[in-house]
Amino acid sequence: MSKFWSSFVQDLEPYVPGEQPKVQDLIKLNTNENPYPPSPKVKEALNGEQIDLLRLYPDPNSTALKQTLADYHGLDQNQVFIGNGSDDVLALTFMALFSQKNKPLLFPDISYSFYPVYAKLFNIEPRKMPLNDQFEIEVDKYDLNDQCSGIIFPNPNAPTSIGITLDKIEALLKANSETVVVVDEAYIDFADNCESACKLINQYPNLLVIQTLSKSRSLAGSRVGFALAQAELIEGLVRVKDSFNSYPLDRLAELAAITAFEDKEYFQQGVQAIIESRNWTTEQLQQLGFEVLPSQANFVMAKPTSKPAEEVFTSLREKKIIVRYFNKPRIGDYLRITIGTPEEMQALISALKDILV
Amino acid sequence: MSKFWSSFVQDLEPYVPGEQPKVQDLIKLNTNENPYPPSPKVKEALNGEQIDLLRLYPDPNSTALKQTLADYHGLDQNQVFIGNGSDDVLALTFMALFSQKNKPLLFPDISYSFYPVYAKLFNIEPRKMPLNDQFEIEVDKYDLNDQCSGIIFPNPNAPTSIGITLDKIEALLKANSETVVVVDEAYIDFADNCESACKLINQYPNLLVIQTLSKSRSLAGSRVGFALAQAELIEGLVRVKDSFNSYPLDRLAELAAITAFEDKEYFQQGVQAIIESRNWTTEQLQQLGFEVLPSQANFVMAKPTSKPAEEVFTSLREKKIIVRYFNKPRIGDYLRITIGTPEEMQALISALKDILV
Repeated sequence: MSKFWSSFVQDLEPYVPGEQPKVQDLIKLNTNENPYPPSPKVKEALNGEQIDLLRLYPDPNSTALKQTLADYHGLDQNQVFIGNGSDDVLALTFMALFSQKNKPLLFPDISYSFYPVYAKLFNIEPRKMPLNDQFEIEVDKYDLNDQCSGIIFPNPNAPTSIGITLDKIEALLKANSETVVVVDEAYIDFADNCESACKLINQYPNLLVIQTLSKSRSLAGSRVGFALAQAELIEGLVRVKDSFNSYPLDRLAELAAITAFEDKEYFQQGVQAIIESRNWTTEQLQQLGFEVLPSQANFVMAKPTSKPAEEVFTSLREKKIIVRYFNKPRIGDYLRITIGTPEEMQALISALKDILV
Repeated sequence: MSKFWSSFVQDLEPYVPGEQPKVQDLIKLNTNENPYPPSPKVKEALNGEQIDLLRLYPDPNSTALKQTLADYHGLDQNQVFIGNGSDDVLALTFMALFSQKNKPLLFPDISYSFYPVYAKLFNIEPRKMPLNDQFEIEVDKYDLNDQCSGIIFPNPNAPTSIGITLDKIEALLKANSETVVVVDEAYIDFADNCESACKLINQYPNLLVIQTLSKSRSLAGSRVGFALAQAELIEGLVRVKDSFNSYPLDRLAELAAITAFEDKEYFQQGVQAIIESRNWTTEQLQQLGFEVLPSQANFVMAKPTSKPAEEVFTSLREKKIIVRYFNKPRIGDYLRITIGTPEEMQALISALKDILV
């Protein structure tokens, strides 16, 4: 604590990201990264000429990327907001749409652990809505409408991996027509039982969809996230962003993002490979006695039944395999395991066989 | 205005960055970019292997870059804070160190025009301190000490280009020992009559120095800025950053920044070339009847005496040369001209000769 800090700084409870270990030769299944590199076209795009151009500022509005995303999702350019990773988009969303409303913000009790951090930063009262016993979001419990500052949840949810269908989201939007509903779709491209809420945007002025290039586009290292909504809602985010940081996206990140979106074939192959590995991994884990939640994401949430999760986590780590363990209520019996390459998942299963005998 | 915005959003007065024109074949002297590309070693560093690694998150703490900057400035790693461009660092500084103190923030009346934007965003009362008739900051007027939330000014100041010496900054730090003093040194590497306040950091716990790689390191397109201060002050920024966006710096930006700092020879040659062009340009402008403020930056603030500045600005634009004109009190008679290559400056002078005859 420094006497020069604003007093609220002392009370913050900063987010703790998954470990980025410095040790080599680890199998890293702890932060839901993509095991495959970005499209090979990204390498071609980020050439020497582009690196020389780093002397110039980027386009502050990332217009070219906005157009790419608008075309991809069948929207207009003014329905797209771009940020320095989806965390940046989330922070600006909390600030522009939830803060200073003096009403609670609704989100699931088990959810992305950055939400309560933002709520604390912007002095928003969090109201945690319990998932049901199957770890599902119960949309009919979100019924405060204009008595809340907003609703936010990931779909598929993290770290549970479970998705909800579009009809439930639509019911939620209708029941809460006077408040903003943010659907945080970091993992939506890996879903095969639920789909993006993007197609509801033109019908619902209270809907904001957030996506990222960190997962399905293999660009976690580039920090690109975006939001899609009707133009008026997007303009609120733009006003705050242009009062905070004019140029959040660097030249190479914008170029990488555009290139990744243009290479649809590579994207589809990559997503399909991960879905197949997820299905294989789920089966193998079940054969080892794990209870596995029905995943719509690039990770599985799995509960070992013969040993405590924390012990399995530690044993895996000794074998140089890192997964994520949350020492928290309700999910303390589970491991969150990112889907890696087939070879990595075979190594995981093989290690688990050793550990669980 | 959308009913879903937080009410403060409507009242924001977002920053308007200098134009990034789409037209080709322009001589672009309007946003103080470096006319030379970044170190050629940056091209070597940002190779295909690094681009494949974009699938992984960056180090959230940018530890390697922190160490590079700490070594360069003779400080410890915990005295370095890194952000997504110095605007991001400034935004977090306003939030962590100036906001919610219910005291005015002091900055020069003619200064970086993002300061009042941040003040508005974070609900901080701005108190604009007039520069004297020579456009100099008068440090002895900044005497509120614990009756202000902080003091911030660029050194060299922008857009005036004028610097103040270290003894004046030290006097200011002593007179305001109970408040934070932020010295925003975006242009300090181009100064030859004043120097960085970095060397005062270990003596003054109330000093925060902000620098950028956008100017002297030719990396405006990479968005890297940093702050230097005693560890306690830095920790305040880290706490807010980790409550806002864990990974503000992408992998390639961090690598480009490290590489640029390591190539000291290229850096020194580039800075020297710009200082020489600045001196040449100043002389030429004076010969054309301009009044030129004594610049310590990579731009000059120059007042045409035979025609209005706005008219000269427009005429230059017709000749495909873009400089910056501010339609504001006190500086409305001036043009801000970025120092480009010798060829660009010759083209500028030649165009001005045509315009002013």
